[in-house]
Amino acid sequence: MKRQPIGVFDSGLGGLTAVRELERLMPNEDIIYFGDTGRVPYGTRAPDTIVRYTRQDIHFLRGFDVKALVVACGTASSVALPRIAGDYDLPILGVVSAAASAAVAQTKNGKIGILGTAATIGSGAFSRAIEAEFPSAKLTSIPCPLFVPLVENGRISPSDPVLRLVVEEYLTPMKEAGVDTLILGCTHYPIIAEAIGEFMGDQVSLINPAREAILTLHHLSSLPKNQDGSGSCRFFVSDDPALFSKNASLFLGREVSEAVEQITLEEIG
Amino acid sequence: MKRQPIGVFDSGLGGLTAVRELERLMPNEDIIYFGDTGRVPYGTRAPDTIVRYTRQDIHFLRGFDVKALVVACGTASSVALPRIAGDYDLPILGVVSAAASAAVAQTKNGKIGILGTAATIGSGAFSRAIEAEFPSAKLTSIPCPLFVPLVENGRISPSDPVLRLVVEEYLTPMKEAGVDTLILGCTHYPIIAEAIGEFMGDQVSLINPAREAILTLHHLSSLPKNQDGSGSCRFFVSDDPALFSKNASLFLGREVSEAVEQITLEEIG
Repeated sequence: MKRQPIGVFDSGLGGLTAVRELERLMPNEDIIYFGDTGRVPYGTRAPDTIVRYTRQDIHFLRGFDVKALVVACGTASSVALPRIAGDYDLPILGVVSAAASAAVAQTKNGKIGILGTAATIGSGAFSRAIEAEFPSAKLTSIPCPLFVPLVENGRISPSDPVLRLVVEEYLTPMKEAGVDTLILGCTHYPIIAEAIGEFMGDQVSLINPAREAILTLHHLSSLPKNQDGSGSCRFFVSDDPALFSKNASLFLGREVSEAVEQITLEEIG
Repeated sequence: MKRQPIGVFDSGLGGLTAVRELERLMPNEDIIYFGDTGRVPYGTRAPDTIVRYTRQDIHFLRGFDVKALVVACGTASSVALPRIAGDYDLPILGVVSAAASAAVAQTKNGKIGILGTAATIGSGAFSRAIEAEFPSAKLTSIPCPLFVPLVENGRISPSDPVLRLVVEEYLTPMKEAGVDTLILGCTHYPIIAEAIGEFMGDQVSLINPAREAILTLHHLSSLPKNQDGSGSCRFFVSDDPALFSKNASLFLGREVSEAVEQITLEEIG
């Protein structure tokens, strides 16, 4: 049987958290990762623009004959996938529905919080996915536009004073709402899970959508799995590979020893 | 004589501060503005990527038969212009040399500070321009990567606690260095000039590079000027025009009553 890879993309580096989970849960699989680092971030852009970029990302990865696609970007999953997933004939897993199901399974008091980029929260995608399974859930959604630049600037320590101040500002209404389950609806946010967890307290469960999406893929019985051999990983970016390699380990949980290849936006268009 | 417009571009909205100065100083001129909002910010990207985007921006504006170009982006001016300005046969004004000259004229103690994006500070362009005029100047350069996201999220009030904390962190070494002149080397920074000025104190002169670039253009004797008629302004962006119109007044100092047109990246490539 032909050995097909799994495609993963994100606007930048955050989606490497999904690669990390893939390597852990499905170590036999080959992975093609595309980070659109030449146009990151997506979360501040308009819906039509996010849809256009997402289509281009999918188009690029389909060129590798992938057997499934993971949209490891909260913004693309929320804003673009509901509009375009039906146009493709392969399994495309976003991070929204898996995270919504996990939150519904996890909550005890029915109060669920959702954090995301401005575009993600504006789309209402997480709320709709949760309400479809749990109509009486009490939801609190808060856009956290400064989290991505903070993470990208390495401000991730729970003792960083700027991060602490921003966490406190964004999450105080979440605490007041009494949520017991909190969706970290952007792939950057698990990187600051410690700071978020310290503020929210131990009794609040944090949901990592990329991890939930990979769990779903792992359990997808219709997906032909590689039974043997060790998986490989190829990385593509639209900005400088050197910038990528420098920061990737934060998300990937290991150093990038593979070559990182640059593509131009013209090539993915 | 044929009436040619002046082209202005920036990675996003910050360059509208240059349009504001143009409208004030040269009210008879027609302006074509391009904000590459579909790929903003430039300041976190690699030099080769910034050069490629800058060439595309210039290519797009040249399609309007502009008589001069203002690169109202600290990052593109610092990183790209030294490498590519010689390839074009029309006047291209960046914000670096005008700001450097203004700082040299302004300083009394010879201690000049430079703030900019990571890419701008990394390029050393402001330092080189100052040292060419004033070799014994004592320079302090500090990258301020969180300023752009703060401004873009409307965190511009001097009483905003996050802005205050970040200003204090970035500018404490500047204060300790005893600079009496400070270049706000990114078009976003003049928007938070009040917060920066409050921290640095009244005795420190703040240099707005976009204003200095437009002053240079105004005095450029070789440039044919429009002598009569009221100037017009056309705005182009690569993300949603609605997002642009919403935030533009902060930089432009007036509401945008003109139509804002969207172009795709394919059209400028």
